[in-house]
Amino acid sequence: MAGSSHGARTMHVYPVTNYSFGQKAGRAAKDATPSATATRLREAYERDGPRRSVDAVMLVNQHNTPHVLLLQSAGSGPGAPATFRLPGGRLRRGEGELEGLQRKLHSKLSPSDASLGGAKEWETGDCLARWHRPAHDAHFYPYLPTHATRPKEARAVYAVQLPEKCKFAVPKSLKLLAVPLFELYGNEKRYGAVVSSIPYLISRFHLNLESKAEE
Amino acid sequence: MAGSSHGARTMHVYPVTNYSFGQKAGRAAKDATPSATATRLREAYERDGPRRSVDAVMLVNQHNTPHVLLLQSAGSGPGAPATFRLPGGRLRRGEGELEGLQRKLHSKLSPSDASLGGAKEWETGDCLARWHRPAHDAHFYPYLPTHATRPKEARAVYAVQLPEKCKFAVPKSLKLLAVPLFELYGNEKRYGAVVSSIPYLISRFHLNLESKAEE
Repeated sequence: MAGSSHGARTMHVYPVTNYSFGQKAGRAAKDATPSATATRLREAYERDGPRRSVDAVMLVNQHNTPHVLLLQSAGSGPGAPATFRLPGGRLRRGEGELEGLQRKLHSKLSPSDASLGGAKEWETGDCLARWHRPAHDAHFYPYLPTHATRPKEARAVYAVQLPEKCKFAVPKSLKLLAVPLFELYGNEKRYGAVVSSIPYLISRFHLNLESKAEE
Repeated sequence: MAGSSHGARTMHVYPVTNYSFGQKAGRAAKDATPSATATRLREAYERDGPRRSVDAVMLVNQHNTPHVLLLQSAGSGPGAPATFRLPGGRLRRGEGELEGLQRKLHSKLSPSDASLGGAKEWETGDCLARWHRPAHDAHFYPYLPTHATRPKEARAVYAVQLPEKCKFAVPKSLKLLAVPLFELYGNEKRYGAVVSSIPYLISRFHLNLESKAEE
């Protein structure tokens, strides 16, 4: 296997209390309803071809258990459930995955004032999974289904090592949550296939659950 | 992240027709019923402590679709369903994971006559997942549940790159099957958590679907 290695990789998982969470200005949600999203994505596909996107898995330690950072957007329309997704987003035409991931993490998570640490590079790690969306709907598969000749989206998920401490600032329309692995596991109904698969994908890492630094 | 890299790893997936499949002598199945298995494992735990085991994910190309090699054992007792698992098994005390995986792949898959290629080393690759069995039952989790203070088994799953051609010989009590990814995906009920998660775990690899070599 090209470039294989069998040493366990380590992720350092720092206490959630090491981080501060704020807000910043941001665009309002793009679509009022799920069907508006579907229409927008279909039109983009007709215009630009397959969408490429990239997401980050970032971990924090709470109650000595690894938690995954997710962005929650309010449900669209009355009674609609909230949606959860990993920080990340669409790549521009010709943009590299890691380059686009840096851009997306800055726009979704970094304070807009660089003096607060917004200009730092995020420490991107391994690719964890590659997902395919074969049709004009919301279903992703971890392989390209046999009859899907014209996939609509390819999504790469990367591990990102958080710094020991930092400040997050999230656009007003979103909320940053830390969700424990046991809540995601087996919960595709609430979190979708991509997010609920994270416990499998990171099980090969040694998660170093750090405790609070002495002041 | 220690030792991180972001180049996609490649697995070469050769046509199933490159391989030959035979039988060899082998021990009969250890247990007549699932409850006999549970009793044997519990006694081994009391005697030896936590069990450590290691499994291999090996891929072949059939109908231009990746298939996973699984060992099927006949269901125990009348009407009991067949069970499927990855090639692999229990590590000896103090035995390394990759060393034990070699030994288990030889005993489960290699012809006993070394002139047929039984003495070759298997090409072990990345660790794909680590599973934990917290209780005296058959449930594995891809993380150690919070209240599991005395886990009963730790199982590591590795990718193994098959050679372009080889001969397999399987103990008589088992049957070697090639099962497509789409059959495993979402099918925890039939294949269990460990096997049905394989589509997630290998999605990050570039699978090079090789066609039959010219004669």
